[in-house]
Amino acid sequence: MSRQDGRERTDMRHVQVTRDYIKHPDGACLIEVGETRVVCTASIEEIVPQFLKNSGQGWVTAEYAMLPGSCATRIKRSLSSGRSFEIQRLIGRSLRAVVDMEKLGERTIKIDCDVIQADGGTRTASITGGFIAMALGIKKLMRNGVLTAMPLTDFVAAVSVGIYQDQIMLDLDYSEDSKADMDMNVVMIGKGDFVEVQGTAEGKTFNKDQMNQLLLLADMGIKDLICIQKETVGNIIAG
Amino acid sequence: MSRQDGRERTDMRHVQVTRDYIKHPDGACLIEVGETRVVCTASIEEIVPQFLKNSGQGWVTAEYAMLPGSCATRIKRSLSSGRSFEIQRLIGRSLRAVVDMEKLGERTIKIDCDVIQADGGTRTASITGGFIAMALGIKKLMRNGVLTAMPLTDFVAAVSVGIYQDQIMLDLDYSEDSKADMDMNVVMIGKGDFVEVQGTAEGKTFNKDQMNQLLLLADMGIKDLICIQKETVGNIIAG
Amino acid sequence: MSRQDGRERTDMRHVQVTRDYIKHPDGACLIEVGETRVVCTASIEEIVPQFLKNSGQGWVTAEYAMLPGSCATRIKRSLSSGRSFEIQRLIGRSLRAVVDMEKLGERTIKIDCDVIQADGGTRTASITGGFIAMALGIKKLMRNGVLTAMPLTDFVAAVSVGIYQDQIMLDLDYSEDSKADMDMNVVMIGKGDFVEVQGTAEGKTFNKDQMNQLLLLADMGIKDLICIQKETVGNIIAG
Amino acid sequence: MSRQDGRERTDMRHVQVTRDYIKHPDGACLIEVGETRVVCTASIEEIVPQFLKNSGQGWVTAEYAMLPGSCATRIKRSLSSGRSFEIQRLIGRSLRAVVDMEKLGERTIKIDCDVIQADGGTRTASITGGFIAMALGIKKLMRNGVLTAMPLTDFVAAVSVGIYQDQIMLDLDYSEDSKADMDMNVVMIGKGDFVEVQGTAEGKTFNKDQMNQLLLLADMGIKDLICIQKETVGNIIAG
Amino acid sequence: MSRQDGRERTDMRHVQVTRDYIKHPDGACLIEVGETRVVCTASIEEIVPQFLKNSGQGWVTAEYAMLPGSCATRIKRSLSSGRSFEIQRLIGRSLRAVVDMEKLGERTIKIDCDVIQADGGTRTASITGGFIAMALGIKKLMRNGVLTAMPLTDFVAAVSVGIYQDQIMLDLDYSEDSKADMDMNVVMIGKGDFVEVQGTAEGKTFNKDQMNQLLLLADMGIKDLICIQKETVGNIIAG
Amino acid sequence: MSRQDGRERTDMRHVQVTRDYIKHPDGACLIEVGETRVVCTASIEEIVPQFLKNSGQGWVTAEYAMLPGSCATRIKRSLSSGRSFEIQRLIGRSLRAVVDMEKLGERTIKIDCDVIQADGGTRTASITGGFIAMALGIKKLMRNGVLTAMPLTDFVAAVSVGIYQDQIMLDLDYSEDSKADMDMNVVMIGKGDFVEVQGTAEGKTFNKDQMNQLLLLADMGIKDLICIQKETVGNIIAG
Repeated sequence: MSRQDGRERTDMRHVQVTRDYIKHPDGACLIEVGETRVVCTASIEEIVPQFLKNSGQGWVTAEYAMLPGSCATRIKRSLSSGRSFEIQRLIGRSLRAVVDMEKLGERTIKIDCDVIQADGGTRTASITGGFIAMALGIKKLMRNGVLTAMPLTDFVAAVSVGIYQDQIMLDLDYSEDSKADMDMNVVMIGKGDFVEVQGTAEGKTFNKDQMNQLLLLADMGIKDLICIQKETVGNIIAG
Repeated sequence: MSRQDGRERTDMRHVQVTRDYIKHPDGACLIEVGETRVVCTASIEEIVPQFLKNSGQGWVTAEYAMLPGSCATRIKRSLSSGRSFEIQRLIGRSLRAVVDMEKLGERTIKIDCDVIQADGGTRTASITGGFIAMALGIKKLMRNGVLTAMPLTDFVAAVSVGIYQDQIMLDLDYSEDSKADMDMNVVMIGKGDFVEVQGTAEGKTFNKDQMNQLLLLADMGIKDLICIQKETVGNIIAG
Repeated sequence: MSRQDGRERTDMRHVQVTRDYIKHPDGACLIEVGETRVVCTASIEEIVPQFLKNSGQGWVTAEYAMLPGSCATRIKRSLSSGRSFEIQRLIGRSLRAVVDMEKLGERTIKIDCDVIQADGGTRTASITGGFIAMALGIKKLMRNGVLTAMPLTDFVAAVSVGIYQDQIMLDLDYSEDSKADMDMNVVMIGKGDFVEVQGTAEGKTFNKDQMNQLLLLADMGIKDLICIQKETVGNIIAG
Repeated sequence: MSRQDGRERTDMRHVQVTRDYIKHPDGACLIEVGETRVVCTASIEEIVPQFLKNSGQGWVTAEYAMLPGSCATRIKRSLSSGRSFEIQRLIGRSLRAVVDMEKLGERTIKIDCDVIQADGGTRTASITGGFIAMALGIKKLMRNGVLTAMPLTDFVAAVSVGIYQDQIMLDLDYSEDSKADMDMNVVMIGKGDFVEVQGTAEGKTFNKDQMNQLLLLADMGIKDLICIQKETVGNIIAG
Repeated sequence: MSRQDGRERTDMRHVQVTRDYIKHPDGACLIEVGETRVVCTASIEEIVPQFLKNSGQGWVTAEYAMLPGSCATRIKRSLSSGRSFEIQRLIGRSLRAVVDMEKLGERTIKIDCDVIQADGGTRTASITGGFIAMALGIKKLMRNGVLTAMPLTDFVAAVSVGIYQDQIMLDLDYSEDSKADMDMNVVMIGKGDFVEVQGTAEGKTFNKDQMNQLLLLADMGIKDLICIQKETVGNIIAG
Repeated sequence: MSRQDGRERTDMRHVQVTRDYIKHPDGACLIEVGETRVVCTASIEEIVPQFLKNSGQGWVTAEYAMLPGSCATRIKRSLSSGRSFEIQRLIGRSLRAVVDMEKLGERTIKIDCDVIQADGGTRTASITGGFIAMALGIKKLMRNGVLTAMPLTDFVAAVSVGIYQDQIMLDLDYSEDSKADMDMNVVMIGKGDFVEVQGTAEGKTFNKDQMNQLLLLADMGIKDLICIQKETVGNIIAG
C-alpha cells in the first residue's frame, strides 16, 4: 500500500533543518518534517531550580506551544493546555536522558519549541529539533570556555509509528494520525536504547506482535534522524 | 531478591476495594493498593462537550488530584499542575477504550480520582478504581432504565512495572519508584490487548529485551486486577 | 418533635474519629459526624509568613476544600470559591485561639481539611477535627524534642445550631440546614468561653430570646465534642 | 473612660450620607462614618443567575473592594482576596433579608461598595450605605413604573461593637479595632430582629455576659443608623 | 458652533482639585474635570524593580482603574483589561518624563488613579491629577528630610483634542468623544515640549493640516492645567 | 551621519514578504523588515462579538505575541503582558480603518501576529504584514463567493520614526530604538491620511518642529511599504 503522499509504509517524510534560524538564543534551528515546521531554541541560564541549588548539577527543561494559525482550525492562545504540558514534560525528559548534569554544572537549558505549521508529529519533531538547538547551545558554551567538559553523552531523536487499516506505518502525517487505530511515539538515543515509549490506542487496542513490529520500524526511522543531527551539529566527543 | 516489604519481584501489593464509599455520586469506590489510597467517583450528566453535540455519542473524561497531605511533603493545592493534566488525560483515554459511545448516548461520565494517600502507582490505581466507579454508575443507569444497552465492552485496568538494579519488578511502591532506572505504566483490557504503554527511562535507558519482559510481567498483574474488578462490579454483558 | 433520623432536637449526630488516618503528615485524622466525613491533616514547617519573621512567634493557617463527588451535585474543582475562603479563614482563627504563638516559635502549622462526603456541618467538623490533627502534630514535635514547652492552651471545638419551624435544634444535617430559617456556628474553648459566634438568618430574622437558647444548646454540644477530643489526643498539660 | 477622639464608650462616630454621589448608577451614595468613606452604588439588571431563571424571583448580590490608597499601607489590587469575598457575601446576605424577591421579579440588584478611605467599620458602613443605594435604585424603578409593588420589606443597617481593656464599646475605629480583644458585627432590621451576628475573639475569648451587653449596645447604634437611612430615602411603604 | 454644555470649541471644562483628599497616602488629590472625577494617590516605597537594584535610580509607575458604577453601564471588576494596561503605561511614562531618577534615589513612586465617575478624558485627568499626587508626595519627603534634592524637573499635564463634524475641539466629554471622528491625547511639560502625542482615527482618517491645529489647541489647554497644578502644589525649585 | 548598518538617515531596512507562508489560515504571510521577522495570519469566522449581533456588520481584531527566543533575553510566555495588549489594540484599530464593516457582513477577521525574531519595529511590521494576511484572506472569500462586494477601502501600513542624537531617522532597528530620545509610530492609508500617530519621548521631550519633520519622513516610508503590499496582494477594487 502506498500512501496519499506517495510514500511507502516504511518511509519517513523529508526532513530539513535550518541551523541558527534565530539569531538571539544560544542555539536555534528550524526543523521541517514534511509540512510540519517547528522553531526550536535553547537559552542557557546560570541558575537552577530550587531543588538543585548547591548540588553542582544542571537541569534541562522545555516549553512547547503552537502558533494560533498553525492548525486547520485556529487555536486559542493559552498557557494551561493539558496537551502542551504533557508534551513539554516529554521533551524535557527526553533531552535530559543525554545530558550529564554534573558536567553541565549549575545551569539551566531552556528549550522552546514553537510550532509554526502543524501536520502531524509535532512532538517528535520538537524532540529531534530541540536536541539540535541544545547541542548548538552547548557547543557555543564550550567554544566560549564556559563549559570545559562536554555534557552531551549521546544523540537523541524521536519518531511516531502507528497502525492504520492493520498496516504498521512510519512517521504519520496529520491525515494519517487522525484516522489511525493507534499511534506510538518512540524516543531513542544513538546507541539504540529506548528513552521513552508511548503507545496509545485511539480506537482499537493492539497486541504484542504489533508492538514488536512498531518498535522495529521506529528504530529504523530514528537512525535516519540521528544521521541528520550529526550532519547539522557535528560529532559529540565527551570531554 | 525479595523486596523491602517482603514481596517477590513478581508480586503485586495487596489490593482492596470498598464499593459505594461515597453516597452522592452515581458510582464510587475507595481503592487501596498497598498504602496508596484513591477515592474514585463517577458523575454522569446529560450533556456532552461541544464537538459531540447532536452526534448521538457520549464522552468519558477524568480529573485527578492529590490531597495536600497525601505525600511525604505537603503539596500545594493547584489547578494547573502539568503532572495532573497528563495523568487525567491518561485516565480518560484508558476508560474510553472500553466504552461504546453510541450506546452511552449523549451523556458525559466524569471520573474524579482523588488521592488520599500516595505510595507509588497512584495513576494506575486511578485507572483501575476509576473503571469500577464508572461501571457502578453505568449499572445504576441501566437499573433505572436510563440506559437500555450496556455501553461497556470490556474491563480495563493498569499497573506499573520497572527496572531496579537490573531486575524487572511488578507494581513499584514509592520507595522503589524513586530509585528505579525506568518505569512503565501499562493499561490493558480484559481480552489481553494494550490500550496504553508508557515507558520512561529516568536514569538509564532500556533495551528491547527488557521491554519484552516488562510487558509480560504487566500482563500478569493486570489479569489479577481484572479479577478483583469482576468480583466488585459483577459481569458485564453487552446489550 | 423527633427528627428525620430519629434524633431529638438536642441530640448531636454520632461522632467518630480515626487517628493517624494518613501516614505522611505530622498529625492527621478522619472525623465523621453522621455522614459528614472530613480528612484533617497538620503539616508543621519551620517557616513563618513575612509579617512574623524574626518575631519569635509562630502561625496557624488552614485550607478547606470539598472533593468533587462529596455533594449531591458534583462540585467543580476551583481555587477561588468565596465560600472556601470564608471557611478557611474561620478555621484558622478558631485554631489560633488556643495556641501560644511564642511557645510554638517561628513555625507554621498548616491545617488541611478536605471534605470526602458532605452532609451538613462541614466547617464545624473541620474545626473540631482540625484541632485533633494539630494537637497530634504538636505532640509529635514535643516527643521529638523540637518543642520543649506545650503551645496548646486549651481544646477548641465547633458545632452548628439553628431554627427550623420555630424549634431550636443542635447539629443540623444537610436536609435540615437547607430548610432552616437561620443557622449559627459556634466555636468554644474547653473552659466555656466563645471564640466565634456566626449567626445568619436565611429566610426569617431571629430575636434575642432565640439567640440565648441557641447559645445554650451549642454549649452542650461543644462539651461533648471536647470529651471526644480528649479521648483521642490525651491531656494537654501546658509546659 | 472616654476615647481617643473624645467619644464616650457608647457613642457612634459622626455619620454623613451624600445621596446620588455618582450620576450613572440606578442608586448611589457616599457614606462617611468618621473617617471611613465608602461609595455605594446599585445597578439593576433585567437578568437573574442561572438558578433563578423562570422562577419569577429576583436576586441581590454585592461586591466590595478597597482603593489601593485607602489604607495606612498601600493595598495591592486583587480580585481574589479572601477577606473581600467574605465581606461581599455578608453584604449580599444582609441586603437580601429585606427584599421580597417575588415583588422584585426577575431582576438582579448589584451593589458595589468601594472603600475610598478606611478607618475601621468598612463592612458595616457598606451594609448601611448599600441599603441606601439599593433603596434609591428601587424607588427610581417604581417612579419609572418598572416595579409596581414595593419589594423592600424593612430597613437594614449594621454596626460593630467590641471589647477593649474589658470595656464594651460601640463603633470601633481602626485604632481601636486593631487593639480590641474581640469585635462583633451585628446586622439588624428596622423592627429590631437580627439578620447576622458575627463575633470573633482576636486575642481573648469572651463570655455569655459580655455577649449580652454587646448585643444591647449594637441595638442602640443600629436604631440611630436607621433614622439616618429614613431621612435619606424617605419611607418605605410596602405595595 | 457652541457645544451641548454651552462651551465654545476652544473651552476646557471646569477643573477642580481637592488636595489631600485621602489621608493615608504620601500624596493624594481628587481631580474633577467637568463630571469626570478621579482619585489620584501617590505611595512612595523604599524599593525599586529588579532592573534598577543597586543603580542608585528610582522609578515611577501607575495603576488605573474604574469603579464599577463610574460608567453609564456597570463595568465588571477585572485585573487584565487591555484598555487599563494601555492607560496605566501611558500615565507612568508621562510622569517619569519630569522626574530625575537619580535625585529620587532607589525609591518607587506608585501612582493610583481610580475613576469615581467617568465622563470622557479619564486618562488625561489621571495624568494631570497623578502629577499633583506625586508632587505632594515628593514635597512631603523633602519636608521630612528623606529627599534632599528636588527630583521634579517640571510640571506635566495632559488634555484631549478631537475632530467632530469637521470642527477641531478641546477637551471632549463622553458624549462628544463617542461621536468624534478622531481624538488625540497630548501630554506636555511646563516648558511647552511634548512627552506624548496619541492621535487615533475612529471613523475618518485625518490630514496633516488638522494635525497641526489639534496640537495648537492642546497646547492652550495644557497651559491652563499647569496653572492649576502650580496653584495646588506651589513652585518646584530643582535642588 | 550614516547608520551602524550603512543606511542613510532616511532609508528603510530591506523589506521582504513571503505570501502564504502557512497553509492552514485564510490568509498568511511572513514579513521581514531587516532582521525583524513576523508571521501574520488571518482567520475569518462566521461570528461577531456580542455588541454586533444582528447589526449586519463585521469586526477585525488582532493578537500579538513574541516567541520566547525572539529577543536578546528569553521572554517568559504570558497571556497578560501590558505591552502585548497595547500593541494588539493598535493593530486592530489600524486594520479596521480600511474595512467597510457592512460589506464584510457578520464575520470576524482575527489577525495573529507572532514575532519570530525581534530587531525593532515589530508592531509596525505587524500592521503592514497583518494587512497583507487580511487582504489575502478577503480575496480568498471573494473567489469562493462568500463575499460579493470588496470590503477593503484602501491599503494601510505603518512605520516608526525617531530622534537620536538630534537626528530624525526612519525605521529604527533595536539598537537605535533603545538609545533614541523619542520614537513615533505612524499608521497611514494609501491616500496619505493618518490613522494613528503615537509619539513617545523616552528621555528627552520633543518640539513642534521636530514633530513635523518626523511626520514627513514617516509619510515617505509608508508610501514604499504600500508599494510592496500592492505587489504582494494585487489591486483592491471596491465592489
